[in-house]
Amino acid sequence: MAEMTVTPWEVKGDIDYDKLIKEFGLTPIEDLPTVFQKNILFRRGVVFAHRDIDRILECIKNKKPFAMMTGLMPTGKFHIGHMMLAQQIIFYQSLGAKIYIAVADIEAFHARGQTLEESRQIAINEYITNYIALGLKPKNCEIYFQSNRSDDPKKSNAYYRLQNILAKHATFNEFKAVYGEITPGKMVSSLLQAADMFHPQLKEFEKPIPVLVPVGADQDPHIRLARDICQRTKEYKLIQLSSTYQKFIPGLKGDKMSSSDPTSYIALSDLPGDIDNKIKKYAFSGGRETLEEHRKLGGNPDVDVSFQYLKYIFEDDDKKLKKIYDDYKSGKLLTGELKQILIDKMKLFLREHQKKREDAKKSINKFLK
Amino acid sequence: MAEMTVTPWEVKGDIDYDKLIKEFGLTPIEDLPTVFQKNILFRRGVVFAHRDIDRILECIKNKKPFAMMTGLMPTGKFHIGHMMLAQQIIFYQSLGAKIYIAVADIEAFHARGQTLEESRQIAINEYITNYIALGLKPKNCEIYFQSNRSDDPKKSNAYYRLQNILAKHATFNEFKAVYGEITPGKMVSSLLQAADMFHPQLKEFEKPIPVLVPVGADQDPHIRLARDICQRTKEYKLIQLSSTYQKFIPGLKGDKMSSSDPTSYIALSDLPGDIDNKIKKYAFSGGRETLEEHRKLGGNPDVDVSFQYLKYIFEDDDKKLKKIYDDYKSGKLLTGELKQILIDKMKLFLREHQKKREDAKKSINKFLK
Repeated sequence: MAEMTVTPWEVKGDIDYDKLIKEFGLTPIEDLPTVFQKNILFRRGVVFAHRDIDRILECIKNKKPFAMMTGLMPTGKFHIGHMMLAQQIIFYQSLGAKIYIAVADIEAFHARGQTLEESRQIAINEYITNYIALGLKPKNCEIYFQSNRSDDPKKSNAYYRLQNILAKHATFNEFKAVYGEITPGKMVSSLLQAADMFHPQLKEFEKPIPVLVPVGADQDPHIRLARDICQRTKEYKLIQLSSTYQKFIPGLKGDKMSSSDPTSYIALSDLPGDIDNKIKKYAFSGGRETLEEHRKLGGNPDVDVSFQYLKYIFEDDDKKLKKIYDDYKSGKLLTGELKQILIDKMKLFLREHQKKREDAKKSINKFLK
Repeated sequence: MAEMTVTPWEVKGDIDYDKLIKEFGLTPIEDLPTVFQKNILFRRGVVFAHRDIDRILECIKNKKPFAMMTGLMPTGKFHIGHMMLAQQIIFYQSLGAKIYIAVADIEAFHARGQTLEESRQIAINEYITNYIALGLKPKNCEIYFQSNRSDDPKKSNAYYRLQNILAKHATFNEFKAVYGEITPGKMVSSLLQAADMFHPQLKEFEKPIPVLVPVGADQDPHIRLARDICQRTKEYKLIQLSSTYQKFIPGLKGDKMSSSDPTSYIALSDLPGDIDNKIKKYAFSGGRETLEEHRKLGGNPDVDVSFQYLKYIFEDDDKKLKKIYDDYKSGKLLTGELKQILIDKMKLFLREHQKKREDAKKSINKFLK
């Protein structure tokens, strides 16, 4: 196995999630309430670990308020990897969470040299439109830009004040440990990110309520830094963050899904021809070299990317998924056939989704007050 | 002469202002319009150098808008050193400048560990009350707290956005050069200070208008850093800063005036008994050891602190000042007599001022909207 590297700026090798749990000091996800089991991401183990999720489960159980906070870095196309996070957001909204979504335009400015206006356009046209089409509701949901927090001065002042106050409770070395090379720009972005995560607790927002931050498995250093800052911050009564960790969904070719490589993902704006082409041409297969061999020895669904996409996103029916798994493993189902199942599912989904996108565009303003 | 050190965090030795002008690359103040000559601070050379003041003089000449921006660090008592800056502010307001005064509560939090509430109380009770009593008018004047920029969300967002964007245009080494030891807290304070200086130019405030920042001679590194940042910032159309430099007013004992040592200054809240005591006991004298010697050889008004205070603050009449100078130098005027002239002037001024302070307290709200 290729050696595993999982940091916020590099993910490579074969990922051993048990090892990750140990190294990062996470807690495996177990015994979630039934409502979670209905969600494909939890039932199939995409969300595999957490920190302090019990505090959130208590809120759900006792119908007490809690917030879910996440950020989006507005670069490139919105793809199925992004969709999985969106589905988590929508799931928590259905459980009653107040949703906060930060458009990290200040971070994109410093990390990518992207203007605030470019970020705004991408955030709206790609991310927010897709969130809405996927089912995000305007009620109990606040989407904002880091550069322009709110139309309420009390809120804006409180948010940026938090950024400036939190600066006292972190050191340069801590920033370096999370970001590698550190510049003043990356530092203010990092402090703003910490403010993003904690500000729902301020009296100008929801008052002290627990905040859950769902992240990719590579983002834990950000969470650890925020949690360390939380412990030292006496100026505010902050409740420690809760977080969950999501597995990496493989790119089409079996390695990393990357916004900068369109042959590594299916975008939610891809057309039927793109789907056919990308899946048939690029989707890494667990099948055998020859038809004969495949029929005789069977394929390997566990490394087959098409199967992963069905498992983690497109086939919600456990029985059907099991049949596909068994048939592929036994050699009854061929790679071309497996790919066709995915293609059909995807096309159906995307046709519907793209219609919803048109409606979604009309209600953008309900989300950006 | 003791070797001169002039940095934002240390001032010592005998100050050679001509050398300072050369080292910092400042321009000596010369040929100011008549209106400046009427002001004691300019006529007596307290304000001795500048950068790019011509841009401001043009505005004054052509009745075009300009802003004067300054910050106050809300610590300790408001003393006669602070009063000299206040008098400059009021002078520029009389010339038509839009006045911006930043209460540096975020900086005080990081540099002094002072809570925002402590800063607020000191800023209001000591600084702002005295500004008003000295003649600051609410019209064309905005006093704000760094932690709570405005009641207008457009303005608040624009101000903190500027702080976060400017971070791109400075390096850690530049901050170190200005601040010595640098922490994340000092860094965000420094960026906020740069935002303080440039934000009057934003479209949310006064639109691009020249900004003048009057500072003490030790503060030029802050100005240089801000000017360097300005040159690199292409995201905004910023007009380069103008600045003026003020000489250090000596402390009572002839060395530094320090907020942490009450025997080094006269506070504007000092009572008549304090004045008598402080001047008689501490004011460094340019007189001779004995009365006889003084009568025979004369005193040295150029090092006498009482004379400096008369020259720079309390004796506006050039003829009277010259007579005091000549009489002290000739030995006709004794040290006790010189001190008494100052004491009488101060008591008269402070009695009136302390009455005005009572009225000023009532109009604080006009300044803090």
